[in-house]
Amino acid sequence: MSTWLAREIAEQPEVIARTLEATWPLRGQLATLAAACPHVTFVARGSSDNACVYGRYLTEVIAGRPAALAAPSVATHYRRRLDLSDTLVVSVSQSGATEEIVATQLWAADCGARTVAVTNEPASPLADGADVTLVTAAGVERAVPATKTYTAQLTALAVLADALTGEGSPIAAGLGRLPEAVRDVLAATDRTDGVEELLAGADHTIVSGRGIAYGTALELALKLEETCARPVRGLSYADLRHGPIAIVGADEVVVLIAARGGPVLSGIRDVATQVRSRGAKLVVVGGDAELAAAADEHLAGPDLDEPLAPIGLIVPGQVVVERLARRLGFDPDAPTGLAKVTQTDDADPRA
Amino acid sequence: MSTWLAREIAEQPEVIARTLEATWPLRGQLATLAAACPHVTFVARGSSDNACVYGRYLTEVIAGRPAALAAPSVATHYRRRLDLSDTLVVSVSQSGATEEIVATQLWAADCGARTVAVTNEPASPLADGADVTLVTAAGVERAVPATKTYTAQLTALAVLADALTGEGSPIAAGLGRLPEAVRDVLAATDRTDGVEELLAGADHTIVSGRGIAYGTALELALKLEETCARPVRGLSYADLRHGPIAIVGADEVVVLIAARGGPVLSGIRDVATQVRSRGAKLVVVGGDAELAAAADEHLAGPDLDEPLAPIGLIVPGQVVVERLARRLGFDPDAPTGLAKVTQTDDADPRA
Repeated sequence: MSTWLAREIAEQPEVIARTLEATWPLRGQLATLAAACPHVTFVARGSSDNACVYGRYLTEVIAGRPAALAAPSVATHYRRRLDLSDTLVVSVSQSGATEEIVATQLWAADCGARTVAVTNEPASPLADGADVTLVTAAGVERAVPATKTYTAQLTALAVLADALTGEGSPIAAGLGRLPEAVRDVLAATDRTDGVEELLAGADHTIVSGRGIAYGTALELALKLEETCARPVRGLSYADLRHGPIAIVGADEVVVLIAARGGPVLSGIRDVATQVRSRGAKLVVVGGDAELAAAADEHLAGPDLDEPLAPIGLIVPGQVVVERLARRLGFDPDAPTGLAKVTQTDDADPRA
Repeated sequence: MSTWLAREIAEQPEVIARTLEATWPLRGQLATLAAACPHVTFVARGSSDNACVYGRYLTEVIAGRPAALAAPSVATHYRRRLDLSDTLVVSVSQSGATEEIVATQLWAADCGARTVAVTNEPASPLADGADVTLVTAAGVERAVPATKTYTAQLTALAVLADALTGEGSPIAAGLGRLPEAVRDVLAATDRTDGVEELLAGADHTIVSGRGIAYGTALELALKLEETCARPVRGLSYADLRHGPIAIVGADEVVVLIAARGGPVLSGIRDVATQVRSRGAKLVVVGGDAELAAAADEHLAGPDLDEPLAPIGLIVPGQVVVERLARRLGFDPDAPTGLAKVTQTDDADPRA
């Protein structure tokens, strides 16, 4: 009997297709809303925050607008008013009910921001409070670890970036190919034992990427940590090389995530060499043939150019997490200590 | 014979006093430069990036301007032009020579930004390229782990926040008391054996804080990891509670860092309770009497209100890191594999 998590991972091609259908027609509305907003700020926690890391890179690299990740405590704890009249604030929450995110969106609107909600719950407080809502069409997600809602969020954020780019958007053509590309990635995940064995035996695990795929590294690190109950560090390869690389050794597994091309790939190759020369085991997700050849284990990435690659790049990692959790005797659907609707404070600190 | 690191930690009261003297007179110039910049973006890596996390909170909470942390690869790898004509870009680098940071500052100026450099090297490329340079007056830093240059950066960023706030700045009065407050913190660090023992015996270490002191948690995590050669995770308590708390158990030491007051303190207390109930050992740096009483070990924080507290809150942690490194048989002045001027890519990817 398969787990909910395994089934939800497998549903992703359909979920992405439905999310594209639901969000694509809103591009005009998004462009109009954002016309007076040269700045874009993202608000989220957890997996949704990792989706926002992707959103912030796409917003800058593709749409050419300065982007930021909000510090929610400025709204919820310090209650500091900012002038956000030139800012589009994009709040992302699967449930649309995480108090911190709802409160930060209300604060942003009160500070003059235009607001977009990305949520799987059209009847949620987050959707209610937004100027435009992008509903991810993932259906009910029964497993606690987010998978199909995460890739649906990425899809919605790619549609947003396309809308902010307007005419001549370089990602418009690729969006339609997403469901097929994710289906192909799933089909290529029949053999993951080697990766599972490496991760099961690792004292320490680092997941790293950079730029557009950096959020994917953070998300795989979080999924591994939460679902397989082991501390995992996710970091950009620039931060890894800036210091922590010094302590990488033979007791470490390093997972590198990269698109098959793009300007950060050569840097990822250099990190791969460095990691191997320090005696650590190397798992590569995606990348090109040269990077795959350098790895102890390789998981194939999607047939997508770098800007959309993260929507497929997380998938082999999700599959490994589900299998590794079972191998380690955990319930992948309900990791100990996690709840589906998360809160970050016991009580509303503004009370 | 004491290490360079120990001596540089001890020099901090003087260094902070000199940095205040050097930067305070530039407030008018900073205010004029920033007059047309409602937005502020910070650029850095490593310890300097942790200083920028502090800078971004102060900029929002005290100066009331939206702030962001830059994604340097947008400049250095994707080479995407953004409109930064409404943005003050603050680049922070001890050496002023890290290629990535220098390149990102050049890109920002080319995108229309006004630029401020915070560096310990007045003759560096970073200083050369900036509209205004805030020189940290730390003198030569011989130990590889940054300590006195880090607190000098925080001091310069506090002066910047004061300049951006203008009349009635709530931190102006406290700035003059910084050297004395840091001297008092140093004087209270004679007994740290208990903390060293806990950390030496920990399988896993988490350092957490939130809001204005969040960057302090990231910095202590980085220092512990780099200098004492052990993986340490630094994260906001909101992110900790959102998921990773689930795997905190008896083999973990959690270090919580907090000012003695302020709106995030009650949340920190809740995390302390949660951490203890999961069987983990708890070290508290700073906080109030109630938080100190909940801890297995407590290190006294500075006599400073929350906005300036981080400048003293990192100090007990620095002292512990230096002593723990020696206890573990490492050279605190030259941790294996680290260089003083760090680069994040092998070659300029734009070449």
